[in-house]
Amino acid sequence: MLKRPFNFSAGPAALPEAVLQRAADEMLDWHGSGMSVMEMSHRGKEFISIYEAAERDLRELLAVPSQFRILFMQGGGLGENAVVPMNLSRGGAVDVVVTGSWSKKSLKEAQRYCNAQAAASNEVSRHTALPATSQWRLRSNAAYVHVCSNETIDGVEMHTLPDLAALGCAAPLVVDASSHILSRSVDWSRVGLLFAGAQKNIGPAGVTIVIVREDLIGHALAICPSAFDYQCVADNQSMYNTPPTYGIYIAGLVFQWLKAEGGVAEMDRRAQAKADLLYHTLDHSGGFYANRVAHDARSRMNVPFFLADETLNDAFLAGAKEAGLLQLKGHKSVGGMRASIYNAMPLEGVQALVNYMQDFARRHG
Amino acid sequence: MLKRPFNFSAGPAALPEAVLQRAADEMLDWHGSGMSVMEMSHRGKEFISIYEAAERDLRELLAVPSQFRILFMQGGGLGENAVVPMNLSRGGAVDVVVTGSWSKKSLKEAQRYCNAQAAASNEVSRHTALPATSQWRLRSNAAYVHVCSNETIDGVEMHTLPDLAALGCAAPLVVDASSHILSRSVDWSRVGLLFAGAQKNIGPAGVTIVIVREDLIGHALAICPSAFDYQCVADNQSMYNTPPTYGIYIAGLVFQWLKAEGGVAEMDRRAQAKADLLYHTLDHSGGFYANRVAHDARSRMNVPFFLADETLNDAFLAGAKEAGLLQLKGHKSVGGMRASIYNAMPLEGVQALVNYMQDFARRHG
Repeated sequence: MLKRPFNFSAGPAALPEAVLQRAADEMLDWHGSGMSVMEMSHRGKEFISIYEAAERDLRELLAVPSQFRILFMQGGGLGENAVVPMNLSRGGAVDVVVTGSWSKKSLKEAQRYCNAQAAASNEVSRHTALPATSQWRLRSNAAYVHVCSNETIDGVEMHTLPDLAALGCAAPLVVDASSHILSRSVDWSRVGLLFAGAQKNIGPAGVTIVIVREDLIGHALAICPSAFDYQCVADNQSMYNTPPTYGIYIAGLVFQWLKAEGGVAEMDRRAQAKADLLYHTLDHSGGFYANRVAHDARSRMNVPFFLADETLNDAFLAGAKEAGLLQLKGHKSVGGMRASIYNAMPLEGVQALVNYMQDFARRHG
Repeated sequence: MLKRPFNFSAGPAALPEAVLQRAADEMLDWHGSGMSVMEMSHRGKEFISIYEAAERDLRELLAVPSQFRILFMQGGGLGENAVVPMNLSRGGAVDVVVTGSWSKKSLKEAQRYCNAQAAASNEVSRHTALPATSQWRLRSNAAYVHVCSNETIDGVEMHTLPDLAALGCAAPLVVDASSHILSRSVDWSRVGLLFAGAQKNIGPAGVTIVIVREDLIGHALAICPSAFDYQCVADNQSMYNTPPTYGIYIAGLVFQWLKAEGGVAEMDRRAQAKADLLYHTLDHSGGFYANRVAHDARSRMNVPFFLADETLNDAFLAGAKEAGLLQLKGHKSVGGMRASIYNAMPLEGVQALVNYMQDFARRHG
C-alpha cells in the first residue's frame, strides 16, 4: 500500500491509520465471533463488551469523575443545540457566550425552548477574539451558561474553561467541545455538561458524546423526545434506541489508540507543537499568508488562513492535492484555507504542509 | 477465511458478505481518493457522489415516485416516534393501529405531542393476529394514521398496506417499515410517509430513512429541533447536521448488492421461499415447536417460535451456536426463540436452521 496523503478536513476528519487497518482486519469477523461489529445485536455480550470498554477508556482518558454520566447519542452538535435546552433549561433563562458560528447557532436554536440571550459576543471582531469573561453579562437566574470551547469554523479556542463560580455565577457550564475534545484535559470542577460530535477529533460521524453531571439529569421538558431525554438514555445505558454501534466501535478503537500513544497529556503536547509550527510559518511568511485570530485565542485544532493574493487560491489547493495534502479549502462562510490538525494528524503532516506552503510562497511571492 | 456462521439477529443484523468484503477492501482508500469514507468531508465531491448514488439506488429499488423526498436521518425508529408527530400532527388528532410492541411504543410517544389514540389493537390476541381494517375506528379529523407494517418483536406482518381511501379516510398513512423495507414493493399511492431504521433490513445502526410526500413537509411544530424538521433536512439534502456518512456508505453498498441480486422482486421471492420453509418446519414438528401468529399475519422477516418443552431452550441455543447458527434467542418480552431472516440471509441459512431444528427435535422428542 502506498503512503496515504495527509487529510486536513474539519470533519468528518482523518483517523489514525492503525485504527482503520484494524477495522478493516476485523470487518468480517470480530475476535472470532463470526460477526462483523455491524451485525451484532446491541444487547449481545459481544457488543456490550465493546461498549463498556469504550466508555471506560473515555472516562480514563478524560479523567471523568464518577458523578458524571457518559452517554453515547445521535444527532451531532446541531442536534444537541436543541437537546441541551430541552433537558437543562426548564424553559427558563439561558446565557450563551457567542464566540463564532457554532455558538451563534446554539443560541438561535436554544431560543426556541427558553429565554436564551447572548451573554457576550465577539461578532464585532468578526469572531477573531474572545470576549473577556469580565464583560460577560450573566443572569442570576440562568439555568446554564453555554460556551463553545473551540470554534471549528472561526479557529477560536478557549485555552482554559471559564470559572463561573469566580464570576459569581452559580449556574452550570455547558461546553460544546466537539472539535477539541481529547486534545487537552478538562477541569471538571468547572463543568456541568460537555458534549461533542465525534466526527472531528474522534472519528465517525453519527456518534454524539454527552458527559453530564448526574444532578442535571431528570429535568427534561415534557416535549423532549424519549430518545433524547438524558434520563431515559442514562437509565438504559445509551441503549433506549439502538445506538450507532459501528461508530461506537470505531470511537473505542480511537480511544485505545490514544491510550497507547500516551493519552491526553501527549495529545496536548503534540497539539502545541503542531500549532506552533503552523502559526509560526503563517506569521513569518512576509505577509504571503495570514491568520486573523488574536494570538491568545488561536485554535490548536482548526487554523483558518488566507493568501494575501486570493487569485492564487485555486493554484494553492491544486498544488496541495498533488503534494498529498487534502481538504484544505476554508469554510464557505469564511473563505480562504483551513487546516484542521486534530489528534490523528501527525507532526509529519503539518511539516509537509508547512514545506509546501513555503515552497508555494517562494514560487509565487 | 473459514465459512461464516449464519446470523439470525433481529437487528443490528446480518449484512451480505460481499458488502462487508468491499467495505474492508476500501477502508483505507476509497476509489483512489487516499481517504477512508469515514474521513471524508460530507460536503466534498467524493462523499456527495456516494450519497447521491445511495439515494438514487434506493429510489430505483423501491420505485419511489418523484413527489416523495428521501431523507437520511438519525435517531432510529424510536426517534421517529417523536419526530413524525412533531412534523405531521400539527398538534391535532392522530390514529395509531396497535399490532405489537413497536406500534404500541409509537402510540405512547405520539401522545406527548398530539391527541393520539389507538384506532384498533390486537392486544387481546397478545399481538398474534391483525385487527381487521373494517374494525379500525378512524377519526375524520386525523392528521395521519400510523401503522407498523412489520412488528419485529411479535412477528406480525401486514402483507398489503391498508387502503385508507377505501375505508373512507382521507388522512395520509404513516408506515413504520423498519424491519421489512426492501423485502417487497410498496404501493406508494397508499402512503404519505414511510420510515425505517436501517439496522434491520439494510445494515448499519445509526441511519434512519424517511420517505415523505412533499406536501407533508413544512408543517413542523415550533418545538421540533431543526435537525429533525423534515423541511430543514430536505432543504439541506440531509446535510443540515453532519449525516452518519459511513452508515450511508454501507447502506449504499447494500443497495448496489440488492440491484445486482435482482432487486426487490427477487428479495420478495426469496423471502417467501425462506418463510415457507421455516413455517412449514414449525407447523410439521409434531408440536415440538410452535409459532403462535395467525397464518395470514405471519412475518416473512421475523419468526418467533417456542419449544413445547422450554427447559430445552438453553440446550437448543448452545447447540445452535455450535452449528454456526447465531443470535436465535427471542426478545425478552416474548421469550422463546426468534429467527430473523432478512434479505441478507440466504436460503442456505434457513435450510441449515431447519436441519438443525429437525435434528434437535429427533434427539429430544
